[in-house]
Amino acid sequence: MKLFLKIAFRGTAYRGYQVQNNAPTVQQMLNEVALRVFGFECDIVGCSRTDSGVHANEFCITVTQKGCSELNHSIPIEKIPLAFNALLPEDISVFSAEMVDESFHARYNVKYKEYVYRMWNGRNKNPFLFDTAYKLPLDVLPEDVFKMNEAAQHFVGTYDFTSFMAQGSKITDAVRTVFYANVSVAPNDENIILFTVAADGFLYNMVRIMTGTLIDVARGNIKPTDIDFIIESKDRRCAGATAPAHGLFLNKVSYINYKGENL
Amino acid sequence: MKLFLKIAFRGTAYRGYQVQNNAPTVQQMLNEVALRVFGFECDIVGCSRTDSGVHANEFCITVTQKGCSELNHSIPIEKIPLAFNALLPEDISVFSAEMVDESFHARYNVKYKEYVYRMWNGRNKNPFLFDTAYKLPLDVLPEDVFKMNEAAQHFVGTYDFTSFMAQGSKITDAVRTVFYANVSVAPNDENIILFTVAADGFLYNMVRIMTGTLIDVARGNIKPTDIDFIIESKDRRCAGATAPAHGLFLNKVSYINYKGENL
Repeated sequence: MKLFLKIAFRGTAYRGYQVQNNAPTVQQMLNEVALRVFGFECDIVGCSRTDSGVHANEFCITVTQKGCSELNHSIPIEKIPLAFNALLPEDISVFSAEMVDESFHARYNVKYKEYVYRMWNGRNKNPFLFDTAYKLPLDVLPEDVFKMNEAAQHFVGTYDFTSFMAQGSKITDAVRTVFYANVSVAPNDENIILFTVAADGFLYNMVRIMTGTLIDVARGNIKPTDIDFIIESKDRRCAGATAPAHGLFLNKVSYINYKGENL
Repeated sequence: MKLFLKIAFRGTAYRGYQVQNNAPTVQQMLNEVALRVFGFECDIVGCSRTDSGVHANEFCITVTQKGCSELNHSIPIEKIPLAFNALLPEDISVFSAEMVDESFHARYNVKYKEYVYRMWNGRNKNPFLFDTAYKLPLDVLPEDVFKMNEAAQHFVGTYDFTSFMAQGSKITDAVRTVFYANVSVAPNDENIILFTVAADGFLYNMVRIMTGTLIDVARGNIKPTDIDFIIESKDRRCAGATAPAHGLFLNKVSYINYKGENL
């Protein structure tokens, strides 16, 4: 069996999830802590890469003994989050732990991921959200939110999303299926606007370019129906700017063949 | 006329509000930025001192030219927040600016201040709240919140609050009037518990010691009615521990004789 953990992290202090040389990453912290918790080195497989500064409300990993396909340990499973949390830095938290089949893969078995991009629409900057929301460069009105949401509906479906992929990306098959997408005002704060999008996979910078394009809709530079033409163009230059990393949250990960059942 | 600003700040990076030698403070940042905005040195008077790590959703200051009782400037008042915000660090924000009478004093004219102490009651640590909420050392149940709220009612009134003042404090008159106090679950997150208290003045560490005492109520170590005896004892050792600074927010400041009218 493998250990399957759900974690959350504030990405501000990290150069993304994936281990890199000479830069702190979330995976590196998890590696160090897993060694201390179990007493041997571990392989950690994450559900996704994330960019520097991107956050996660839910991120999934598997832990196995280094070079092995499973993890043998004697710690009661309900104590695992506490053991990790006691040793992890304050900006990374484990909130769920269970053992899963060896055949399970944290990345290949993803059915869909949901991202949320958080925008601060207050007139003045917010000292409590500067690293977890993007301060919009314009005042977005309620009717603009309506238009942004209308535009987001045009992302839904199976398309070649080359226009929403960072230039220089080496991916050759840019076809992805977006299951749902919407823009709304946060239920608990009228100054926060949320773009939520779920897909079977995401291209490099896809959510951030979608967000930048939705901001162009709010500006009135493009119409909601223009999204169709931008997708069809397969040209990155037709889409909007790449919104900053610090507004982006991986929010939910859903799996297939997870203990033989869909989550 | 004096310039009257309402600001918000995340206190994590500062050694409190008040200027100190060899340590970054909020007042020092405001001094530096006021010099750049107006082109001359200014005196800045705040509504309160705050401890290292304490935050403010609303903190009030007046700005006058150094050594003068007023501020002469030609910047349109509605542009002042933008001018300050462009130069202030991301964790300090000005959200309101107006000119007030020279007789107005940001500290002496305070009618009451409201503080909120934020507690994280989730099972696992929250990577997004580690510097803006105190993770409770026990699981607080809904009935415990009810008891804490019942206990908080015993703070309301005019009392000598010596028991809720840091030992070594040089204040001789510890009589303060608490106008209201309550403990509740945050409307937007059931894992957040809020202690809200308003008074005409606060002793050093008063809200943090009150919070530590309310946590003892949640623990069942003391009963809500014990608050009366703790107040009567005038003995710091009868109250609970001082809760950490990072859960505390100055939330609201209300003034008397503000343009001759109560706010």
